[in-house]
Amino acid sequence: MTESYPVKISNKSTAQEFLDSFDNFLFDCDGVLWLGKHLLPYVKETLSLLEKLGKQAIFVTNNSTKSRAAYCKKFASFGIDVTQDQIFSSSYSSAVYVRDFLKLKPGVDKVWICGEAGIAEELALMGYDSIGGTDPRLDEPFDAERSPFLINGLDPAVRCVVAGLDSKINYHRLAITLQYLQKPEVHFVGTNVDSTYPQKGYIFPGAGSVINSLACASGREPIYCGKPNQNMLNTIVSSKNLQLSKSCMVGDRLNTDIRFGVEGGLGGTLLVLTGIETEDRALEENAEHPRPKYYAEKLGDVYENLQ
Amino acid sequence: MTESYPVKISNKSTAQEFLDSFDNFLFDCDGVLWLGKHLLPYVKETLSLLEKLGKQAIFVTNNSTKSRAAYCKKFASFGIDVTQDQIFSSSYSSAVYVRDFLKLKPGVDKVWICGEAGIAEELALMGYDSIGGTDPRLDEPFDAERSPFLINGLDPAVRCVVAGLDSKINYHRLAITLQYLQKPEVHFVGTNVDSTYPQKGYIFPGAGSVINSLACASGREPIYCGKPNQNMLNTIVSSKNLQLSKSCMVGDRLNTDIRFGVEGGLGGTLLVLTGIETEDRALEENAEHPRPKYYAEKLGDVYENLQ
Repeated sequence: MTESYPVKISNKSTAQEFLDSFDNFLFDCDGVLWLGKHLLPYVKETLSLLEKLGKQAIFVTNNSTKSRAAYCKKFASFGIDVTQDQIFSSSYSSAVYVRDFLKLKPGVDKVWICGEAGIAEELALMGYDSIGGTDPRLDEPFDAERSPFLINGLDPAVRCVVAGLDSKINYHRLAITLQYLQKPEVHFVGTNVDSTYPQKGYIFPGAGSVINSLACASGREPIYCGKPNQNMLNTIVSSKNLQLSKSCMVGDRLNTDIRFGVEGGLGGTLLVLTGIETEDRALEENAEHPRPKYYAEKLGDVYENLQ
Repeated sequence: MTESYPVKISNKSTAQEFLDSFDNFLFDCDGVLWLGKHLLPYVKETLSLLEKLGKQAIFVTNNSTKSRAAYCKKFASFGIDVTQDQIFSSSYSSAVYVRDFLKLKPGVDKVWICGEAGIAEELALMGYDSIGGTDPRLDEPFDAERSPFLINGLDPAVRCVVAGLDSKINYHRLAITLQYLQKPEVHFVGTNVDSTYPQKGYIFPGAGSVINSLACASGREPIYCGKPNQNMLNTIVSSKNLQLSKSCMVGDRLNTDIRFGVEGGLGGTLLVLTGIETEDRALEENAEHPRPKYYAEKLGDVYENLQ
C-alpha cells in the first residue's frame, strides 16, 4: 500500500480540508484531549465546532480502569457534555467480547479480573458476576497457605480471565490469576496491549507489560480487545453504523491509534503530538508502524487555524 | 550433535555407572534436594555417599531470594552440613557479574534492586550499596506525587538494576524500577529466566515473568545471570577448577538445568522427576530443549539402587 506523505495541520486550508474530509471523528482521550487532569488547549472549542458542523464525535480509549459511566463524569469535570453511547473503552470492548464472542452465560459463568473497577462495572451491566479485581483481600501480602482465593479452592464457575492495567498489581493478584490461566478451559482476555502508561510527565508500566508477565508465566497468549485490535472497531462500526471512508481516527500513538485506523480501513488518521510521539516519528517510513494521513502539534490546532 | 538416548537410573548397574562417570556433581536445589520445606527421600544418604567416595558436591540454584549464607542455614535445617563456598545462587552470580563484568565501583556506584534480600546481601559482601529491594516504603500503594523514590528524584549513583523474584512485587516496585531502566546508562541484569516458581503443589509466577514485564515496559532485554546462562558456569568452573568432562549437572528442569549442563559442555546431566518434568518430556526429542544423559524418578534412587 502506498501511503501519502503526512499533511501537517498548520494553517487555515489544511484545517478546512481535514474537517471537510470526514463525518465521523474517533478520538483517543488521554494524550489527545487531556493529559491526566489537565484539558489541552482549544479541545473544548474543537469539539463544539464539530458539533456545530453536524459531525459525529466518538471517544475510543484503551484505558480499562474506568467504565464508560466514569468517563462521562471525567468529561463533565472539564465542562464537556458527552453521553455514554459516544464512549468506547477497552473495559467495555472486553465485556462485549466476553458476551458476543465467548458467549459466556450471565448469572452462571464468572470472570476473574486482574485489573481495576472499570472492567467489573462493564461486565456487571451485562449481567456478569466477576471476582478478583479490586477485592481488598488481594491487597494483602501473598501467602499460599492463607490466601482465601487458594485455600477455599478456585471458583469452578470462572470461565474467563480479563486482565488490564492495575495500579494495585501485586504478587497476590499475579499468583491467583495464574492459577486460573493454568486451566485450559478458562479464556484469557487482555484489555489492551500498551506496554507503558504516561502520567504526570513519567512513563509508568502499562496494561501490556502486566499482561505480558501473565502470558510469560502461563505460556499463553491473550486475546487483546483494545486498539489496535479490530474487535474494538467492529463494535464501534456496527453500533454506530459508520461509513468507514468518512471516518477519521485521532490519536497520539502510532502503533495503537494510527495502526487501528489504518488497519480498520478508515478514511483517515490524525496524529497529535501532545502524547508520546514526535514530528520525526510521524514522518519517518518505518515497517513497525503506519504513518498518519494528517498530524498536528495538538488537536486544538484544528480550531485555532480556522479563527 | 548426536545425543544418546537417556539412561534411566533404575537398578544397581545404572546407578554405579552414573557414580563412576563423574568426580563433580552440580545440584539444583529446589525440586531436586527438597520441595519447599520438605527434604526428598534419601537425599541426605546420597550426599553422604558422594562424600564418602571423595566426590565434590556443588549446589547451583536460580533462587535469588536467598544469599549463600541463608542457603547454608537451609541445608543445616535439614541436618546437612554444607559450606558457603559450595553454593552458587543467582543472587551471588548476579553480584559477581556486577563486579567482574560491569566493573561497578564499590562505595561509589549503586544498584537498584527489584527483588528479595539475597541480592542485596551478596552485593553488600562485595562492598556495593543497593537501594529499592525490601525497603518497606515500596510496600505502600504507588502514588506518583508521593513516592519518596520519585519526589526526591532518581539516585544518580545507580548504575545497574538487578531484578529477580519478589513475592512482594507490586506496581510501586515496577514503576520505580522502570524509571531507572529508562536511563540508557543503567545496566539491566536479571537473576534468572525461570517463568514459574513451583511451591506447595502450585505453580506461581517466577523471576522470569516479572523481569519480562520490566523488559516489555522498558523495551530492553536484560542480561540473565542464572542457569542456563553460562556466566554462572564460568564462575563455578574457574573458582572450583573443574574438569568439565568429569562434571555432571543434576536438575529438575530441561530448559534451565539440563540446558545449562549441555551448553556448558559438562560430561553429563541427570534429570530428576521430582520437580516440573515428566518421563515423556525427558525422553522426547524436541528442538526447544536438550535431552538429559541420565534421568531418575528422584535423586535418592542413586543411593537406593546401590543398597
